Amino acid sequence: MEDGFTVCIVGLGLMGGSLAWALRSPEDRCPPAADQPLPGPAFRARRVVAVGRNPGVLAAAQQAGAIDTWTTDLGTGVAEADVIVLGTPVRTILRLLPEVGRHARPGAIIADMGSTKRQICAAMSRLPADLEPIGGHPMCGKEVAGFGAAEAALFCERPFVLCPLSRTSEGTLATMRSLALTIGARPVVLDPAVHDRAVAAISHLPYAVAVSLVGAVNAGNNPVAWALASSGFRDTSRVAGSDVDMMMDILLTNREIVLEWIDAFTREMNRLRYELDEDDETRLRERLKTARERRIRLRF
Amino acid sequence: MEDGFTVCIVGLGLMGGSLAWALRSPEDRCPPAADQPLPGPAFRARRVVAVGRNPGVLAAAQQAGAIDTWTTDLGTGVAEADVIVLGTPVRTILRLLPEVGRHARPGAIIADMGSTKRQICAAMSRLPADLEPIGGHPMCGKEVAGFGAAEAALFCERPFVLCPLSRTSEGTLATMRSLALTIGARPVVLDPAVHDRAVAAISHLPYAVAVSLVGAVNAGNNPVAWALASSGFRDTSRVAGSDVDMMMDILLTNREIVLEWIDAFTREMNRLRYELDEDDETRLRERLKTARERRIRLRF
Repeated sequence: MEDGFTVCIVGLGLMGGSLAWALRSPEDRCPPAADQPLPGPAFRARRVVAVGRNPGVLAAAQQAGAIDTWTTDLGTGVAEADVIVLGTPVRTILRLLPEVGRHARPGAIIADMGSTKRQICAAMSRLPADLEPIGGHPMCGKEVAGFGAAEAALFCERPFVLCPLSRTSEGTLATMRSLALTIGARPVVLDPAVHDRAVAAISHLPYAVAVSLVGAVNAGNNPVAWALASSGFRDTSRVAGSDVDMMMDILLTNREIVLEWIDAFTREMNRLRYELDEDDETRLRERLKTARERRIRLRF
Repeated sequence: MEDGFTVCIVGLGLMGGSLAWALRSPEDRCPPAADQPLPGPAFRARRVVAVGRNPGVLAAAQQAGAIDTWTTDLGTGVAEADVIVLGTPVRTILRLLPEVGRHARPGAIIADMGSTKRQICAAMSRLPADLEPIGGHPMCGKEVAGFGAAEAALFCERPFVLCPLSRTSEGTLATMRSLALTIGARPVVLDPAVHDRAVAAISHLPYAVAVSLVGAVNAGNNPVAWALASSGFRDTSRVAGSDVDMMMDILLTNREIVLEWIDAFTREMNRLRYELDEDDETRLRERLKTARERRIRLRF
């Protein structure tokens, strides 16, 4: 594609909007990571088309320069696209995929940015044989949703998980790698189940924990607690402010794995509780020390 | 004290060091909150003396201008002070208080910045009758400890809890209010038990949660999870990097209340787990929505 791809982004929220900005505003996005340079020419979008539900948001995005054009009709939006990227919540992706399959032109790449990958990749495998599906998940986010929070630099230095299907061609994988690198992300190829287990640990479990933390303090009916809340509580509870529709879809399409991580977490919490209750200073100190050393190794 | 107070800070770590900087560098600290202006003249430190264990740190702090002078001998350090502020971990405060009582001059204010207040205020009540004890806890912190992380602006706009004893004079409370306002904090007078219950909810519980989160992911032995960890995991787990000595003392001197909050948290987590397991979309969505709305109301 010498003259660039026609890209259709379905769902112009935080992720879709940020991808649009990154494709249309090369000067605002991060350059490819120094240690992972582009193997070929940068991914170029000749044209960025958005499909969404809210004409007001779409028109404003066009006005602002994030997209070339838009439509609220999925079939119209995807028909001419070389690369279709679904940026809606997971269960909406699952619902839209068959219709995308009916309208996409032969050879089109069907990618997504959904937060769980097993069900999406399974649904992608049922797309018509002349399409090129590949799962994706850029590991970045904010607790604020919507196009208003979108920014070209969102993907900067973040892992961009790619889940090629067995039918996905080398060319499609190379194109998506190039897209990820071009917007400053770090492509990582993973099996959908490996992805879902890993993100359940570092994203879905922390969300369940944050929701339960806010829930416990709320149930405690302690206004002094809220008045004294400091940076520690702010950070530990931040992701409880995440978009509910997005999180419902994530939890429900990754249920069994999330339940396993919740149980692993509860085991740890019960042990800490036991050691504290028993005044077992040696074991408790060891537990806190191990967690501290592991956390500090994250270095970010 | 027209010409200012001689202040002795015992323990020149993050809190003690930040207090020293705030007293000695008025230009770097926050001004009193606009809606809570100083009722009288600002608290002025004529002289800031530090007591610590590490001569290297103390000498460097003096060199940098954070303190006027220092000693490693507690008795010598507190002897001439008008205001003595204990800035060590809680159980060290409990251990040092009797010795402070033996060496402080009559009329001296004995204050502290410890993170739990019931045991400290109880120990303060046993100090000689000619001393002026008052509990304190500035609600600010970082997950990094030590003088190197100290800064004059640490207390900016943060609540500074004061726990006067029944024997504490009005003058002592006024002096400590003035100190808190002068360094840009917001003084809040609380009963020690009310303080301990509130901070258990918004500080000690989040710490136990963060430790268990890191512990669960660590036990899961999933290197992909660590590689994909993003801002959500970073924030939810941040306080697991807190100083272990400080946190051991906090948990052990606030044990019963922390255990109650852990149980309240576990109840919330179990309900979320049940709703997810049962595919109870209505209740699960309501839970996520309630937590989101409560979290967003924090606005910080």
